[in-house]
Amino acid sequence: MTRGFYIGRFQPYHNGHQAVLERVAGEVDEIVIGVGSAQLSHELENPFTAGERVLMITRSLAPLNRPFYVIPIEDIQRNALWVSHVQSMTPPFDCVFSNNPLVMRLFAESGHVVHCPDMYERQTHSGTSIRHRMLAGEPWEHLVPEAVVEVLREIDGAGRLRQIAQSD
Amino acid sequence: MTRGFYIGRFQPYHNGHQAVLERVAGEVDEIVIGVGSAQLSHELENPFTAGERVLMITRSLAPLNRPFYVIPIEDIQRNALWVSHVQSMTPPFDCVFSNNPLVMRLFAESGHVVHCPDMYERQTHSGTSIRHRMLAGEPWEHLVPEAVVEVLREIDGAGRLRQIAQSD
Amino acid sequence: MTRGFYIGRFQPYHNGHQAVLERVAGEVDEIVIGVGSAQLSHELENPFTAGERVLMITRSLAPLNRPFYVIPIEDIQRNALWVSHVQSMTPPFDCVFSNNPLVMRLFAESGHVVHCPDMYERQTHSGTSIRHRMLAGEPWEHLVPEAVVEVLREIDGAGRLRQIAQSD
Amino acid sequence: MTRGFYIGRFQPYHNGHQAVLERVAGEVDEIVIGVGSAQLSHELENPFTAGERVLMITRSLAPLNRPFYVIPIEDIQRNALWVSHVQSMTPPFDCVFSNNPLVMRLFAESGHVVHCPDMYERQTHSGTSIRHRMLAGEPWEHLVPEAVVEVLREIDGAGRLRQIAQSD
Amino acid sequence: MTRGFYIGRFQPYHNGHQAVLERVAGEVDEIVIGVGSAQLSHELENPFTAGERVLMITRSLAPLNRPFYVIPIEDIQRNALWVSHVQSMTPPFDCVFSNNPLVMRLFAESGHVVHCPDMYERQTHSGTSIRHRMLAGEPWEHLVPEAVVEVLREIDGAGRLRQIAQSD
Amino acid sequence: MTRGFYIGRFQPYHNGHQAVLERVAGEVDEIVIGVGSAQLSHELENPFTAGERVLMITRSLAPLNRPFYVIPIEDIQRNALWVSHVQSMTPPFDCVFSNNPLVMRLFAESGHVVHCPDMYERQTHSGTSIRHRMLAGEPWEHLVPEAVVEVLREIDGAGRLRQIAQSD
Repeated sequence: MTRGFYIGRFQPYHNGHQAVLERVAGEVDEIVIGVGSAQLSHELENPFTAGERVLMITRSLAPLNRPFYVIPIEDIQRNALWVSHVQSMTPPFDCVFSNNPLVMRLFAESGHVVHCPDMYERQTHSGTSIRHRMLAGEPWEHLVPEAVVEVLREIDGAGRLRQIAQSD
Repeated sequence: MTRGFYIGRFQPYHNGHQAVLERVAGEVDEIVIGVGSAQLSHELENPFTAGERVLMITRSLAPLNRPFYVIPIEDIQRNALWVSHVQSMTPPFDCVFSNNPLVMRLFAESGHVVHCPDMYERQTHSGTSIRHRMLAGEPWEHLVPEAVVEVLREIDGAGRLRQIAQSD
Repeated sequence: MTRGFYIGRFQPYHNGHQAVLERVAGEVDEIVIGVGSAQLSHELENPFTAGERVLMITRSLAPLNRPFYVIPIEDIQRNALWVSHVQSMTPPFDCVFSNNPLVMRLFAESGHVVHCPDMYERQTHSGTSIRHRMLAGEPWEHLVPEAVVEVLREIDGAGRLRQIAQSD
Repeated sequence: MTRGFYIGRFQPYHNGHQAVLERVAGEVDEIVIGVGSAQLSHELENPFTAGERVLMITRSLAPLNRPFYVIPIEDIQRNALWVSHVQSMTPPFDCVFSNNPLVMRLFAESGHVVHCPDMYERQTHSGTSIRHRMLAGEPWEHLVPEAVVEVLREIDGAGRLRQIAQSD
Repeated sequence: MTRGFYIGRFQPYHNGHQAVLERVAGEVDEIVIGVGSAQLSHELENPFTAGERVLMITRSLAPLNRPFYVIPIEDIQRNALWVSHVQSMTPPFDCVFSNNPLVMRLFAESGHVVHCPDMYERQTHSGTSIRHRMLAGEPWEHLVPEAVVEVLREIDGAGRLRQIAQSD
Repeated sequence: MTRGFYIGRFQPYHNGHQAVLERVAGEVDEIVIGVGSAQLSHELENPFTAGERVLMITRSLAPLNRPFYVIPIEDIQRNALWVSHVQSMTPPFDCVFSNNPLVMRLFAESGHVVHCPDMYERQTHSGTSIRHRMLAGEPWEHLVPEAVVEVLREIDGAGRLRQIAQSD
């Protein structure tokens, strides 16, 4: 039995994440998903709470044919302790999937196997560009799973983002 | 759709927890389980990491016919902020199930509906008595779900507890 | 112009504190009152929030013929930094009034003048004994200023304490 | 009896703050003033300690015909917990006065009534512009209450700001 | 080149520590000494600051014929992260010397080689018994290196301990 | 006996630091060196752990004819407490050597004597320029002591920096 780890901030969770996880599901038996910067919310770069992001991910992955775990991971501001922090909060995993150079370095220095999955249409499918579209009133719903559209509607996600954006 | 919240330290997860959650599953559509004191491990009262506890709970609840979320909740040492902390880490919930007077008070003061489920053979089914049995080398496996026995065997749970117990 | 500093946890504020502060008011021009362990509440030893304690003190001192400042002071768990922490949160003061040996030592080591005021009927006028009376359902109202009785009634102080006491 | 809440960083407290609070005083019985980012000082954007700011505000508001509370509020870096944090440190309040979109959003999401007072000559009356004047050696004393001039003179406020500004 | 790690709270540093380190010096090329609970001081169980303890140790080890490093280690209250925390603050080491079961477990779980040195007259040579002697006014100077007697005299160590002991 | 204090981040330790400390060694009997931002590592501005920096400094200063102490100092994000924090972690010192205006201000406000040593070829000898050279693949080894070259080679310092730099 193999378990793989994947981490992101998921602000919000989008089709790019979904495409990566569907491919990862073909390579491991179980997936552990870390929701990074879990303590942040109501910020321009981090509008949604960890709980809201857990909901987006869990609903979107329901059709996936693999057991998975969605775990909020608070920042600890100390890179040298971060891998131990992640490991303490998650079920044990055998390998890491990441495109982030710092994440890759930290796991590699601690002796983990790190895979670098191909990313899916990165230009359009990024949290940054989706948040910009929400702020500008442009369509963004086609870039995220249907379940994410529902969650963001329930919590007035775009409204929150637009109000926060008025702060300097 | 209703969602219910239940919290414990689950050191370890046992049949008493399982019995309560099976009954809760009959009253709500989805269950959010908070794994309290998530930051603690390798202590006499808190031997297992949050990740190990997430694994015990998720595997034990797999047969349950309800969607559920298992979320590590770190202590924040400030009771007046604790409900907001829990809410930020979890999907929104409609009611709380708890027998802990402090948890009941904090959620009630913040306007939540709190239910007090009957507990299952409390005397024998408590984390404290199970940890004592592990330390004393007495049988404890019949007090926890099969999946918990497996997890504790993999991580040498009883061995860890016994070694830590030698500290004064 | 001289300013004096006095600190306590004020769980709750009582006639003993009031008697000391009335005497201190005769010796300095302004009084700075630190509300210690400000982050704690909803505990058996610390049932009331910093804000509730600020309210008790401010109302009770209103008749006092001296300007005063009531400042919540969170614990920092590092004795060697505590005096600097207090100083950063309060207007500058010239002397300290305290009967607590640790507070006296810390301020003395940092070069402050420390006075040790006589305490007022210490046996009956202590937070501990007043909380015990609340729990036991015995009269306690005569031990605190009238304003404190009002505040505790508004926030259901005795009820909160009794419910919390049911936790083990 | 109604109590209103107003928060700022007050680096330093100036005539714009004073004008708003004088108007708020006409609408509520008591005012609670939160001194935000209380833990910061000796920075270009946050030169003064919480205690120094408490002193500026308390002296400036002395002539006001309303009871008021001046409470340092440390940052907690978690927006979702911030309203509970503020509430734990302050006497209970009925409404909030703020022009800050994030503050307005956080209090609104937690069910508070939020008022948006007109600001007073915002261009010249801002902490930023007053600190720039101090650094440039231009006159700033006419932009703050007399009491603030006194406090800043006692603590060598402009000197501290100019020395700190030499750091890169 | 081999480097060994040894940790203690050193409240105060005594002949038992010195005897262990002299033996360790015969087995490794360099010694890294962690000063645990570095953030604590002015407590009955932890009277001396990290800096005072660094001074005691450095002076006592000066005659030792081995390079050594004396590093304050603050508690992080999370056992699962503690080994990474220690490693981030210290030069890399090859093996650990400890008699503490928790320290031994944590280093072993992270893959380190752990040695368990014989202790030196443990009954009389313990921080606890030396602090009790200081409090009782009994002789303790023969239980610690000469350099420790000097440091404690300079900082009025016994006086500090006795004053703190008056707190309840 | 006089002891002097000097603090830096030492990312990495270079010939400029070495030149200053050699001159300081002529003015005091012992030197206390604080390794600032000790908790940071694996960042573009802070690539090396505190332990790695302790090693660089200790080896480089070995030929110095003065006793010295190398102490990691974690950030506390509160300038008003910083001097007390430093003092709690270090042996007592009589004077401070610094060119940093904030460090100079904080120590001066707390009553310390502060000296401002001449800096050594500041343009080329700065952590920033050395890290830029490492990133660009330009020679940097001549700007640091021989011992630093060795340490950075052992930990693959330049490789770490280059990988981290690929993060956004």
